[in-house]
Amino acid sequence: MLLEHIDSPDDLKKLALPELPQLAEEIRHFLIRKLSATGGHLAPNLGVVELTLALHYHYNSPRDKFIFDVGHQAYVHKMLTGRQGRFDTLRQKDGLCGFVKRNESEHDVWEAGHSSTSLSAAMGMALARDLKGESNRVVAIIGDGALTGGMALEALNHIGHEKRNLMVVLNDNEMSIAPNVGAIHNYLGKVRTEKIYRKAKDELDWLLRKVPAIGGKLARTADRVKDSLKYLIAPDGMLFEEFGLKYFGPVDGHDVNKLLEAFKQADQIDGPVLVHVLTTKGKGYSPAEADSHKWHGISGAYKIESGQVIKPVGSPMYTEVFGNALIELAERDSRIVAVTPAMPGGSGLLKFAERFPDRMYDVGIAEQHAGTMSAALAIEGMKPVFAVYSTFLQRAYDQVVHDICRQNLNVVFAIDRAGFVGADGETHQGAYDIAFLRHIPNMVIMMPKDENELRNMLHTAVHYDQGPIAVRYPRIEGVGVAYDEQMSSIEIGTWETVREGDYAAVLAIGPMVQVAEEAADLLKREGINVRVVNARFVKPLDGQMLLSLAKERLPIMVVEEGAVHGGLGSAVLEFYAMQGVQPASVHLAGIPDVFVEHATVKEQREEVGLTAENLAQRLASLSVRKRQRAT
Amino acid sequence: MLLEHIDSPDDLKKLALPELPQLAEEIRHFLIRKLSATGGHLAPNLGVVELTLALHYHYNSPRDKFIFDVGHQAYVHKMLTGRQGRFDTLRQKDGLCGFVKRNESEHDVWEAGHSSTSLSAAMGMALARDLKGESNRVVAIIGDGALTGGMALEALNHIGHEKRNLMVVLNDNEMSIAPNVGAIHNYLGKVRTEKIYRKAKDELDWLLRKVPAIGGKLARTADRVKDSLKYLIAPDGMLFEEFGLKYFGPVDGHDVNKLLEAFKQADQIDGPVLVHVLTTKGKGYSPAEADSHKWHGISGAYKIESGQVIKPVGSPMYTEVFGNALIELAERDSRIVAVTPAMPGGSGLLKFAERFPDRMYDVGIAEQHAGTMSAALAIEGMKPVFAVYSTFLQRAYDQVVHDICRQNLNVVFAIDRAGFVGADGETHQGAYDIAFLRHIPNMVIMMPKDENELRNMLHTAVHYDQGPIAVRYPRIEGVGVAYDEQMSSIEIGTWETVREGDYAAVLAIGPMVQVAEEAADLLKREGINVRVVNARFVKPLDGQMLLSLAKERLPIMVVEEGAVHGGLGSAVLEFYAMQGVQPASVHLAGIPDVFVEHATVKEQREEVGLTAENLAQRLASLSVRKRQRAT
Repeated sequence: MLLEHIDSPDDLKKLALPELPQLAEEIRHFLIRKLSATGGHLAPNLGVVELTLALHYHYNSPRDKFIFDVGHQAYVHKMLTGRQGRFDTLRQKDGLCGFVKRNESEHDVWEAGHSSTSLSAAMGMALARDLKGESNRVVAIIGDGALTGGMALEALNHIGHEKRNLMVVLNDNEMSIAPNVGAIHNYLGKVRTEKIYRKAKDELDWLLRKVPAIGGKLARTADRVKDSLKYLIAPDGMLFEEFGLKYFGPVDGHDVNKLLEAFKQADQIDGPVLVHVLTTKGKGYSPAEADSHKWHGISGAYKIESGQVIKPVGSPMYTEVFGNALIELAERDSRIVAVTPAMPGGSGLLKFAERFPDRMYDVGIAEQHAGTMSAALAIEGMKPVFAVYSTFLQRAYDQVVHDICRQNLNVVFAIDRAGFVGADGETHQGAYDIAFLRHIPNMVIMMPKDENELRNMLHTAVHYDQGPIAVRYPRIEGVGVAYDEQMSSIEIGTWETVREGDYAAVLAIGPMVQVAEEAADLLKREGINVRVVNARFVKPLDGQMLLSLAKERLPIMVVEEGAVHGGLGSAVLEFYAMQGVQPASVHLAGIPDVFVEHATVKEQREEVGLTAENLAQRLASLSVRKRQRAT
Repeated sequence: MLLEHIDSPDDLKKLALPELPQLAEEIRHFLIRKLSATGGHLAPNLGVVELTLALHYHYNSPRDKFIFDVGHQAYVHKMLTGRQGRFDTLRQKDGLCGFVKRNESEHDVWEAGHSSTSLSAAMGMALARDLKGESNRVVAIIGDGALTGGMALEALNHIGHEKRNLMVVLNDNEMSIAPNVGAIHNYLGKVRTEKIYRKAKDELDWLLRKVPAIGGKLARTADRVKDSLKYLIAPDGMLFEEFGLKYFGPVDGHDVNKLLEAFKQADQIDGPVLVHVLTTKGKGYSPAEADSHKWHGISGAYKIESGQVIKPVGSPMYTEVFGNALIELAERDSRIVAVTPAMPGGSGLLKFAERFPDRMYDVGIAEQHAGTMSAALAIEGMKPVFAVYSTFLQRAYDQVVHDICRQNLNVVFAIDRAGFVGADGETHQGAYDIAFLRHIPNMVIMMPKDENELRNMLHTAVHYDQGPIAVRYPRIEGVGVAYDEQMSSIEIGTWETVREGDYAAVLAIGPMVQVAEEAADLLKREGINVRVVNARFVKPLDGQMLLSLAKERLPIMVVEEGAVHGGLGSAVLEFYAMQGVQPASVHLAGIPDVFVEHATVKEQREEVGLTAENLAQRLASLSVRKRQRAT
């Protein structure tokens, strides 16, 4: 076993080159085994085993900077930098992070979780290096999917302009999470397959070598043609060369020797280079090679031999409920179209895409474009449903403000992964969407207490014609309730009292309604009757109910799985201040002003005090004395 | 005079082709004359006179959709669609908007103000058209600067993938607002100048026509070469062809005949096309041609003959104070670098760029890249100052959350145009930066009451080493105060009482401190003493002062030129709720939940109740009776 002796890149460098394939095999075995217990991003990491080995073998981390785009493909990097022993804790509370994490190792120099940031990071590090007069290498490792993200293209434009020394390793597996879309993807496909380019170039050279013999005008023309050959011949990497990067490749990403050869060649170049590496997602594990989409990220354990994922049986996920409801609605309204930024599977739209291929637009990793394109679809009378994770909608904030809300267009936002997301951790928490959407004029924001209400909210949304409307839902299973026979619309801005009580009122949204009910159950045993309100509209609020709560002098606790600052609780406080009405008291329960790391959703709720026990305790402390003082 | 008879595109179409140059001249004369009174985006509009004429002459608006990127170059379009008579009111309250405005005309089909949205809009309109089975043309008119914005490139990727019928008119004036940067710009320069491309292609064709006569292997090779010629020859628009768009051009953008010819050719193509049009910004007005950067947007009147801009003498703008202070600080700290997304002039950085050319990075219209690149510069020990308008920072919201604040990096945000911006109107208001930054962990947010404090805040920011820190300032002149001899740092999270009083406390930020003082002056005449606090830190708040205000039972009014929802007032309310402390009362004064249109800053403040008179009135109504009831 070679792997057990590798605790650092220095150990790796002690191996002889011919030993690396064996090490690669051991690494694959390690990953397949370890992840079968913890889950994780198996396929992307199996795809970059040789690439990561070659990078650490050839360069000198941490002096040379490796910037992994997204960062979920850094497991091999973690294994080579002293973290093999922590893989049993992968993506668990206080365990190894599933992404690059600066506080884990000096070799982790850039964190991400969202895609397409690596080229900007590399540019910044190259500029800083040059200002400091240092000479280290900066290497960004980016997938072909991430390359279509707008900020990666902005960075490419700047990189080509600045001409600094930096290397882009294009990890081309013909995939982002889902099969890739877009012109750049098609372009790469052409480069990958059409060897005709290089062949034709060779033949033209040969042809022109023959031509001077012909003499006369023809020869002079041929000379001029040769002079301009460097412009005329489209090399494999023309697109990148147009952007000002020197292109190398394509290189077999599973052949360490060829990778090292490419790095050596690239090192000779002064200025930015791009090394185009072809890899296979899931390489070496047949279930993952066969379905790399499914194996992109596995949330839990699986059986190694069969690749069967071990899943607890439960209610359908909100995501799935959304996807099915959208199909039902789209059957009846041909104006409904779906827009996704490269997440057809994650957003529950695969069945929709099958049913309505013409009404489904996967735009690639391009949240900004998805937002503004939805605006234009709405202007032309369509009913676009922009399905997006809460954390990725952050990328389209300006498009929501400037294009959708300012023009007050009928765009439906289906915001998935709102609230805690569990193992993906801080880069993926849906903690801010209420805070970044609530202050935008014309916006309506809803969150359902269960999956039946999600269906009705989607019905509400596609029938609403007064402007933008968002429905947010969590990355968990539904409650398990039965569906109404027919979907129906909910009156905008109305809340629902789900349990009566006169001790205090809890205003809760989404899964917190259930948690609040559990808290009320706990308190009921102590003879305390807490009212629970499903505050299903974050905007507009149910002003009438808020006024009557103030009149009743009931202490109010607002409970949300989202940032306290700028959240629903904040909205309630603003309402009372603007009405000039003072309620008995308002208490806030939500995510405090910190980034919450990876753990289970349950642990994350415990961490911030959003369990039934936490709420019951806080509510119990609102003693009668306090209530009287408040009034 | 032809112009006075043109009230619609139909009128235009009645003209004979040879009359169009005369009309173009009349339009230029009209614009130069009208804008000399009102100000406005003169140079961009002078550049597109013939282009706009040709579009309206050849296509049929509003059936065919013209989507103007940014929309400040739509004056000619407005003139041709019945709005000549309203140019005296340009950019004034209730007057003609300086951008495309859907409620002004059926010919205005897409609004903007921020750049790079037009391709996404065109894509959405093309998809909707095809779903509806209609056949209208969709034409996006985009500048070469806007093309480098990430979302435009995301859209280009999708356009090339979908292959729908749509036309991109690339209005290439070698400028965005400032001279353009980036690889795409360099690429366009090559296309513009190197006619060698086309010439060499012609010669190669000729050469190959001769070759078959040679016979044998050579001939067969030549055949194969001919087959692959379509791949081998890099046409002028290779970059765009790689993206999947058919390229036409470059076309002289001041020759109506050539433009019409290009449109006719482009109409023959099935799928997306790009027509590359070369124009001169400021064409036909020599002061604007000579300095199109200055003449991009003129804020007020000018003398037609000399081009001299008539400016009232006043205090320096905050922008200028920022730029000068940054130079002073950078002289002493070589780690300070400046980052701007294509706004070196607007952000007051031209002198900095002269003084420190190596430490100034203009990245083009690329706010996302600017944000994340700044993060990487900070990781490597630099002190990046990301200078950006409040409204454009919206584009980098995710980068602020995910890359800068989550990694807690020492990035300084210099947020210009915070608050009302006047004539640019709703797309440019700096209304949301507090609301979209305040809920992000690790962020510090400041706003100075005057230009001296701006200098000290910038000093504070570049010396702060605990994470990201923002200083926001308005698009107005400073107060006219003297500078401290030495800049110095302000203790984080401390507010300043600028006037004592025991009737109520006004917590104000930025220019609102002065407005609050004026309100206090007005009330003093009535014997009412209002305390005024410069609440210069929006985050963290001055908790100590807030607690003592609550203890004093003083009614509190929070005054900010920013969205009420999620703003400073909201933060104050959250603070009290989280502390479990009830102040006497908290009143909110800020921008209500609407988009505020173009007018002067003074009028905009009047519209939302943020004048001294408004505040004095509201404060006076907090009668003693009310205060007692509250306590």
